[in-house]
Order: sequence, then structure tokens, then C-alpha cells
Amino acid sequence: MATRKDLANAIRALAMDAVQKANSGHPGMPMGMADIAEVLWRKHLHHNPANPHFPNRDRFVLSNGHGCMLLYALLHLSGYNLPMSEIKQFRQLHSKTPGHPEYGVTPGVETTTGPLGQGIGNGVGMAIAERILAEYFNRPGHEIVNHYTYVFHGDGCLMEGISHEACSIAGTLGLGKLIMFYDDNGISIDGAVKGWFTDDTPKRFEAYGWQVIPHVDGHNAESIESAILMAKSDQARPTLICCKTVIGFGSPNKAGSEKAHGSPLGIDEVAAARKELGWPYPPFVIPEDIYAAWDAKVQGKRLEEDWNIKFSKYCKTFPELASEYERRVSGQLPDGFEVGIEKAISSIIAKRESIATRKASQQAISVLASLLPELIGGSADLTESNLTEWANAQQINHQKNGNYLHYGVREFGMSAIINGITLHGGLISFGGTFLTFSDYARNALRLASLMKIRSIFIFTHDSIGLGEDGPTHQPIEQAASLRYIPGMDVWRPADTLETMQAWVSAVKKSNGPSCLLLSRQNLPFTDRSVEQISDIKRGGYILKDCAGQPEIIIIATGSEVGLALKTQEAMTDLRVRVVSMPCTNIFDRQEPSWQQHVLPDGIPRLALEAGTADFWRKYVGLEGGVIGMNSFGESAPADKLFDYFGFTVENVSKLVRQTLMANK
Amino acid sequence: MATRKDLANAIRALAMDAVQKANSGHPGMPMGMADIAEVLWRKHLHHNPANPHFPNRDRFVLSNGHGCMLLYALLHLSGYNLPMSEIKQFRQLHSKTPGHPEYGVTPGVETTTGPLGQGIGNGVGMAIAERILAEYFNRPGHEIVNHYTYVFHGDGCLMEGISHEACSIAGTLGLGKLIMFYDDNGISIDGAVKGWFTDDTPKRFEAYGWQVIPHVDGHNAESIESAILMAKSDQARPTLICCKTVIGFGSPNKAGSEKAHGSPLGIDEVAAARKELGWPYPPFVIPEDIYAAWDAKVQGKRLEEDWNIKFSKYCKTFPELASEYERRVSGQLPDGFEVGIEKAISSIIAKRESIATRKASQQAISVLASLLPELIGGSADLTESNLTEWANAQQINHQKNGNYLHYGVREFGMSAIINGITLHGGLISFGGTFLTFSDYARNALRLASLMKIRSIFIFTHDSIGLGEDGPTHQPIEQAASLRYIPGMDVWRPADTLETMQAWVSAVKKSNGPSCLLLSRQNLPFTDRSVEQISDIKRGGYILKDCAGQPEIIIIATGSEVGLALKTQEAMTDLRVRVVSMPCTNIFDRQEPSWQQHVLPDGIPRLALEAGTADFWRKYVGLEGGVIGMNSFGESAPADKLFDYFGFTVENVSKLVRQTLMANK
Repeated sequence: MATRKDLANAIRALAMDAVQKANSGHPGMPMGMADIAEVLWRKHLHHNPANPHFPNRDRFVLSNGHGCMLLYALLHLSGYNLPMSEIKQFRQLHSKTPGHPEYGVTPGVETTTGPLGQGIGNGVGMAIAERILAEYFNRPGHEIVNHYTYVFHGDGCLMEGISHEACSIAGTLGLGKLIMFYDDNGISIDGAVKGWFTDDTPKRFEAYGWQVIPHVDGHNAESIESAILMAKSDQARPTLICCKTVIGFGSPNKAGSEKAHGSPLGIDEVAAARKELGWPYPPFVIPEDIYAAWDAKVQGKRLEEDWNIKFSKYCKTFPELASEYERRVSGQLPDGFEVGIEKAISSIIAKRESIATRKASQQAISVLASLLPELIGGSADLTESNLTEWANAQQINHQKNGNYLHYGVREFGMSAIINGITLHGGLISFGGTFLTFSDYARNALRLASLMKIRSIFIFTHDSIGLGEDGPTHQPIEQAASLRYIPGMDVWRPADTLETMQAWVSAVKKSNGPSCLLLSRQNLPFTDRSVEQISDIKRGGYILKDCAGQPEIIIIATGSEVGLALKTQEAMTDLRVRVVSMPCTNIFDRQEPSWQQHVLPDGIPRLALEAGTADFWRKYVGLEGGVIGMNSFGESAPADKLFDYFGFTVENVSKLVRQTLMANK
Repeated sequence: MATRKDLANAIRALAMDAVQKANSGHPGMPMGMADIAEVLWRKHLHHNPANPHFPNRDRFVLSNGHGCMLLYALLHLSGYNLPMSEIKQFRQLHSKTPGHPEYGVTPGVETTTGPLGQGIGNGVGMAIAERILAEYFNRPGHEIVNHYTYVFHGDGCLMEGISHEACSIAGTLGLGKLIMFYDDNGISIDGAVKGWFTDDTPKRFEAYGWQVIPHVDGHNAESIESAILMAKSDQARPTLICCKTVIGFGSPNKAGSEKAHGSPLGIDEVAAARKELGWPYPPFVIPEDIYAAWDAKVQGKRLEEDWNIKFSKYCKTFPELASEYERRVSGQLPDGFEVGIEKAISSIIAKRESIATRKASQQAISVLASLLPELIGGSADLTESNLTEWANAQQINHQKNGNYLHYGVREFGMSAIINGITLHGGLISFGGTFLTFSDYARNALRLASLMKIRSIFIFTHDSIGLGEDGPTHQPIEQAASLRYIPGMDVWRPADTLETMQAWVSAVKKSNGPSCLLLSRQNLPFTDRSVEQISDIKRGGYILKDCAGQPEIIIIATGSEVGLALKTQEAMTDLRVRVVSMPCTNIFDRQEPSWQQHVLPDGIPRLALEAGTADFWRKYVGLEGGVIGMNSFGESAPADKLFDYFGFTVENVSKLVRQTLMANK
């Protein structure tokens, strides 16, 4: 009969062999964490290989994503739809086994990892989601939401600042069903970590209020087993299990060294490791008894069936809650959503309010929160500035759940947590900070885009218009830079109506994230026709046209739309069209006929945005005009700054005439 | 006689009054930390108000930069060239008292802060610089480098992940002359921090190996005094002094609440606070005895004179070291630098090596290190991938100094530390990571640009050319986004020669930072004329021209330059010019005649870069062609990916013809 060591060795062999065949990859971590994975996956993890979307499954996150062969081996051995042919295609174009785990590509991969530390943030988000949903849906005797979130991570994740942000808030919230395994192998890419990482990690996590289980032998199944039991026994605190492991365990000449980390062991060393491990089988061959011992299909089927029975009872007792649960998990918006939005839009039109778009966003959030119980908001300690909280929001803390999280000053942690909440399913999550500090969170936004998930990021104080806080707080290049993240939709609305539409588009976009860039200062409301209102969602549209063929088109976004309109009004001798372009990304996806309708060829264009000027060359070309920012801002009252940087009717008019001359 | 409380109240009054007059700003922190500042600045800080550049001054960093009125008040009261007229101009356009402290704007401001946590990183960098320079220059009896670095910070800084990264490495390195003051007031913008920040901070810092002095009464001068003495007594560990304070101390109705944090107290409350504090003087009036007690000009003059005497002796005993020290502190490059570089360039030309530009960078670093003893390198745990280490590099650890730092997996911390080392003076500092992970560090790069300092950031694995690690590791939008940071020079060199020039330009650029984007894969060497070699430093130049007037111009950077040349060679029927554009930022600063020489009007253009396509519209216009990336990458071998994404002679040729058609 196969021993537990044999079962773990199956992972080691697949990792060594796949990396060797690809001639690239990371064998060290899978070989080091194989024993831990064997205990967790075979004895604890609730999952169903036949249905990776089983809603009440435990979540498993590989934050040290370079060790993806561990995960692929686990999925393959457990019976997921990841055949050996895919393992053999490790790191090849369009395989299901890319070089780092990718959500949406491989069945059973819960999140895209590789950029270190973010998996921890995702795990914290998943544990938060589980807790919120459990409290919302569970009823005595009917625990339909009840699962653990497990995270694997290494020294690299713990060195990253985001591990501090995410684990600190996890401790404060007391996420008892979050269990992390620290692969304490003492090695990172540059060698023995003692030269650059000497934290007393157990003490650090105790300082966060975690249960810490130190000094666990990561190669001893019994020790790992008791640690997991102990972790589960504490429901009030997240647990860190510190596992002493040997990187590249089994490789006689490379184990315990950075040489095992990030490149193939080499054919000879793989052979030597086979011998050392007592694994006599050829590459990519797993004996039947080992497959049998790993197979989680039967148990997984039973787990899901048990849950289905439980859920059927729940349906009978709480039919409304049950259908709400099903809707939520499917990610569909509720009936009545469209009607509610239409009503809100009518009210916005009637009110004609000239307010800051951050304020307009708060009003939109209030409407959405009344329609979407799945909405979970928050801010990185700028609630009153971002205006992300609404009237009936319930704050989430260590004792009770709700729908609003005070994330603290943790922009990156917040964003990775938002991704985790979104990935979990059943919730729509957003969070706010200042646009400048999108810099702190940027890679989490990128991963949301890569994963094609509906995370929503609110960035207020979106230009020099924030005024006196000065250049450290005034975004310049951020709007353009965010628009360049593939798949991201960046909205910079001009008034209450565009802000509402931005929110609605973000909520309806089920295949990717959105950013909303919002003003601190008041912006004028513009009247629109019914058609124009509907055009907002195309990302760019004619807001105010001239009679006849325009001589020039002014394209503007957000706070500069008002200036464009004023300029149009002032230049009575010219036929000027004003285009509002609240979301360039969506405009770029429109059919060419729409783009031509809005921006017909041959008419000179001028762009206005209090952000990177060069970005607008893609719309105005080399001969067009741009009034944007080519430098950092300054500390002064906002109106002074707009004057100083040339955002005046006078200056825009001047450039309009220059542009017309240049295009003569 | 003025009591210590009166002296601290002078700060409080100036902060309240300046914020009130500006009708914007943060009174709470200055009022809370005034007593701590009084003890530190009047009794410990070695500085000379008449010469903010006195080289052996203690460094003072206000990481919680929103409390800048504390610093402005200190500078004003101590006798810096910051008259009351500037205090009255707080937060006004072009005043010396902007809304957050800005390096280069206000005499005595050591670094730009506001984006939370980064000041801590800067402080760690300054303490590292002091230690390196002390070991290098000091001789028994001649301690010409010997100063402390003091950092003020609040809860916000401690929540930020970068505080973890920077303080963890500071502990490992045992930076005994770094002393931080934690403004433990229990309040952040969203309110009482206990809802989102419950770390046991003393324990956390003990886990980093720091000396922690907990429970200091931040309003009791004697307690603060003994804490500072205790901090100084431990030369082997950095010290955190945890000061319990009351935010907005003295404001009867707002003290101890977030209401005191970020807005004016209001005229009535300012009046009430005056009464509460016993400060009867009108706004912006400081009695003479209080000025006298604060004045640090006499003591500062003596401190600098003492140091000058010490340095004169040093000059006599170690004349070479002394002149080297003076050179270093002035930031000048050594004699022989140009000759050394010329020699290296000749050798590069002779070798004609086709190697990865990361490898070319390593060779350049070796040359520079032999010429510049002030060069301090490092990597965020990717030394063997970034190739940032050179043959004779000496690793810095807690026992000894050197010129290479293993930063661990801490990209943001590393970058803020590099800024701190640079700001300290006497050293030229660089560090490496993968280009994708520039995302993690982005705001530190931005601050280097805003501060106009010579930090150098090495980003390898600069495109899909890294291959199998896949889309999480393949930068797409990063090159374009970094170029949009005002003042940043982003280099993407094409071969060994351009890489050398990129390094030389970065080192010579004394007024701002540079990024070097380097390939993982080998790139072909291109022969150039003497003139062309000299043209590289113009950022864009004609690399290979056709005979006669070109019909089309292909602009390329880095790894795509070789493809441009191959296409040119293949399209024998067309007159194609190839322009290499290793640094768009520098090209944009060239005189128009040069730009016209390289890219004459009226000739169609096509851009090639394995990064965001849209960026290139600013050079090719609406009618030009671009082969770039419009999506994320994939996990596969690099050559497969270049084929898949259209970076082939065939595809470029096709687009060349299409572009010519479109421009007919």
C-alpha cells in the first residue's frame, strides 16, 4: 500500500518532471510543501473535483504561485479535469498549466498568483466573504455557508508589505476560518534568508492577534495534522501554521538551497532525486494505487450531495433566502435592478445637481445598496473623503458583519482583499482611496483585470482639483496609466448622470474590473436628451453639438467637460462640437461607425484633461491640440491651479484657434 | 521665562493659525506631537539653521507629512530661512510652505512626504547611508560622519505595508542610529483606530529585532527625554519610541478626535484652544523670549564650526579621503570618469556582443563600480535574475558595510530606501526587480521624480520576452506608464552600447531619477558610427537609414530594434529608415531640429514595442502603424510568444505596406 510519503512523492515527481520537460519553472517549493499539501488536501480540504464551482467548497490559495506545479499536481491527482497531457504541456502556449496559476484557465484554481503577497490578501478577502455570507444566509440548523480558506505562502510573501496589511486587518477582524501555512524553508532567490529576513514571524503574527502554531515539522504528516486540528479549534482568530520545510526536498544535491528554487533540477539530479525519494516510476507515470489514494471524486461528490440535501431543506424552509442565495452565487443582478436604476436616473435628471462626482458617487452607492444586498463597500481610511459610505451601511468588525469595511490605511491590502471577496462569489465589492494612491495598489488592479473579475475601485481627488494638498496628492499620470491596464475600464464622469452610469456599467460588467475617478470639487450638471443619456454607456458621445458640420471637436472628461462647454459657448464665431469621453476603454470597444459618428475623420480635435497630455494623442493625432498636464501639480487652492495650468476658457480658445491654423 | 509647554504651544498656535488662514490643512498632528518635537529639536537634533546642507547634520523625516505645519513651525522657530510671511502663505501657490513637505522647496526639509509610510523607508535609507559613509570615511579619532536619523510617523504609516518592509530590513541590518517616534494617538481619518488597527506595535517591532520603548507619555518632556537617551544608548538596534499622544492637543472640543485631523479647527475653536493652552498671543505672533528659546542658530553655527575643525584635521591627516568625501557630498563625478567610460565603450564596440541587456547592464555596472566608489547596488531578491551584482561587490549586513544590499522581496521598501540613500548624499544608489513589479514600487519612483533626485531603478524581464513565467510576470503597460511620470527618464536599450549609455545618462542626471528596462533574452549588437554612438544620449536617433528620402520610418525600442532592422533588410523594394528610441523622455526634450532630423514631418511612421501600443500614437499619429501589445501576455517560450503576438518580419512588413497605403 502506498505510504503518505509515496503520495507526497507523486507531487514531487510531477513537479520535477514537468519543470524538466518545460526546461523552466520552480521545482523547489512543490517538493518542499508536498507533505503539507498531502495532509491538507487528502484529509481536510472540502472540495469536489467534478465541480470546481461547488459553492460551499473550501478555498485554497497558493500565494507562492511560482510553486504552481504543486497545485497542478494536486488538481490532477485529486481528479479535476486536468489530465496528464496538460501536465506535460506545463508552461506551453494555451495549455491549462501556465507558469503561474491563472484563475479562469485551470479548473480548481481559485485566484491568479505569482506577484507575491497578494494571494494572502485574496485569502483574507475570501474569508471575509465567507463570514459575511454565512451571517446573511445561515439560519439555526441551516449552515449553508460554512467553509475554510487555506493559504500557502513562503518567505517572499511574508517579506512583502501587503502581507502586513492583509494579516493585520485579518487579525483585527478575527477571521477564525482563515488558516495559513508558512513554508518556512529559510531560502529565497538570493539564498539563505537570514541575510535579509530575520523577523520573528510567530511573534509578528501574535502581534496581529493571530493564533500561531510554531515549529511544525513540514515533512511530518502527524505534526501537520495536529496543527490543522488546532487551527480549526480556534474560531475566533486566524491561524498561522509555521512549517519548517526543506526546499527541493528529495533532491540530494540541491535540497535546502536556492538552486532548487527557480530552474529545472537537471536530468541527472532528477534521477538522483527519484532514487533518494524511492520513486522508481518513469516521468509522468503515477501508479494506480497512488491515483486511487489521491482520488477525491467520490468523497467530493458525497460532500456536494450532502450540501445539496442541506440546501434543499433550506429551500423549503427559507425559499426566498434560498433563491437570493442562488442569484448571488450566480453573479446575476436582481429583478427590479433596471427599474430601480431608471427611477434613480429620472430623479438625477430632475434634481440637476451640480455637486462633486464623489458626492454623486455616494448617491449612486445609496441607490445601488438599496437594490443590491451583495454590495460590500469600504475605504482605505478615507471614508469621509471618498464618500464611499452610505446612510444604512453596517460596519464590519470583529464581532459583527455588515457591508462596510474600514480597511485602514492599506490601499494594496484593500485591493487584494476586494479581489478575494469578488473571487469568492456572492458579493460585489468596492473600495476607495485617493487616485494618487492607486499607485500603492496598482498590481492588485492589474490582477483583477487579468482575472476578468468584477472588482470596483473608487478613486476620488482625481486631479489638481483637490487643491492645497499639493503634488504628492495630485494625480497626473494615474488616469492614463490605469487606462493602459488591459481589460480595465476607467471612468472619469463629468456630472451626476455620468457618475450614475459609470457605477451601473461597473456593476453590470461581469467580466472585468472598473475604476471610477471622481472629483473633490463640484462639477456642473448638463442637460441631455434621452438618447444622450443612453449614449453615456458607450464611453464617448456628443454632449453638445453645433449646427452643421463642426469645424473642431473638443474632447473632454470629468471636471474638464464644463470647461469645454464654456469654451464652446464663448467661441460664437466657430462651429464647435463637445464630446464627453467618460470611459475611453469602452469607447475604444465601440463599433467603428459609432466612433466615426462621434469623431468623424478630417475634423481637427482638441482634448482637455487635467492629466497626462500625451495620452490624448491617440484621439487627436499629431496635429490636434491637447491641454493636459506635463508636470506635477502645485499646492494651492484648486481654482488658482486650474488657472495656472491653463485650464481657462481663454487658453482653450487660444489653442482651438492654433489647432485650426495648424490643420488648415 | 517660557516653559517647555509654552515652547510647544508656539508650534500648536502656528499650526492652528496657518491652517485656519489657509482654510485647509491638518492641525491635529502638529498639536499632538509638539511636545515630542520640542524635546528632540531643542535638546538633541544636530543641525545648523543657517546651513541646511551641513553634511554631518542629523536627518529628520516627517513621515506623517500631512502634519507639515509641525515641521514648518520648527524650521521657522529654529531660525531657518522660513520667515513668518511664508508661514502665513501656507498652502498657497509657490510659497515655501506647501500642503505637504517638499524636498527642494523648503530649506531644512530632507524629503518629500505625504504618501504614508515612505518617510520611514527614506529614514531607513538615510541611516544606511550614514553607516556606509561612516565606515568608508571615518578613521580612529576622526569621526567625520556620525549622525542620527530621526523619523516621526503615525498610525497611518504603520498600517502601510511599506512600514513592514522598511522596518524589517532595518532590524536585520541593526541600524542603531535610526530612531523613530510613533505618534500613538489612536486616531486615523476614519476615527478611533481600534476598529481597524489593533496591532500590538511594540511586539511587532520586537519581532523585527528593534529596541522598543513603549508607553512613553508624549506630552511629558522628561519621559520623552529619557526615551531618547535610551534610544541612543543602543547602538546595535534601531529604536521605536511609542509615544501616547492626544491628537489636536489643546483643542477643547476636538482634541482626541478625527475632527482635529484634516481640517481647520474653526475660528471659535482656535480661540478656545488659545485659552485652554494659555497662549494669549494673536495669530502669527511669537513673543521674543519664545523665539530666543527656540533659536538654534548659535548652537548650529558652533556645531558646524566644531565639525569644520574636525574636518580640517581630517584633511591634513587624510587629504585624499577628505577630497573624496568633498566630491561625494557635492554629488560630482570623479576625474577620470569620462575617460573610463570612453574606454569601456571602445571595449563594447570591439566585443560586438549579442547578449541580454540585463547582462550588458551588469557589465556596465562593473565598469561604473570601478569608477564610482559611491555606487550602492541591490535587488529585491532577484540578484541572479536582475544581474545587479558585480564581481567585487561587498554585501552589506548587520555586521559590516559594503556596496550591495540584498533587500529581500521588498520592492516598495527598496525603492523608498534607495530614495533615502540618495537624499542623504554621498552615494549613488540603485536597485533591481522585474519590470512588472515596478507596480509595487510605483509611488516611490514618483516621489523620486517629484524630488528631482538621482535614484536609479533597474527593471529586467521587460516584456513577453521573459517567456514561460506568463502574464503575471510579463509587463505590458509598465513602460508607457513609467514614461508618463513627469521627470522620469525611462530607458529601454537595444544592445550593449545603448545599455552602457543608459547607465551613463542615469548616473550623470543629477536632477532626477531614471529607470532602465532590460531584457532577459539575448539581443543582437548593432554597429554604429562615432556620431551615432554619441547620438544615443539624445534618446532617439537614426540607427540605420536608407539611401535617399525614406518612404517610411520604423521606430523601435529595446528588443524590437533587431526586428525593425530585419524588416528593413527584408523589404528591399522600399526605402525604410530605422530609428532607435531608447529613451522617449529624453528625445522629447531635444530641440525641434533634432526631432525633425530623426522624424521629419510628412513621412509615415510605424512603431514597434512589446508594450502598450497606444503610447506610440504620440509619435506615429492616427495614420501611422503600431505593433505593440493590446492584451496581457501568455505563458510560453519567448520565441513562440513573439510569433504569436505578431512580432515577426512578416507581420511588420505587412503593416508597413498597410501604413503606406493608408498614407497615400
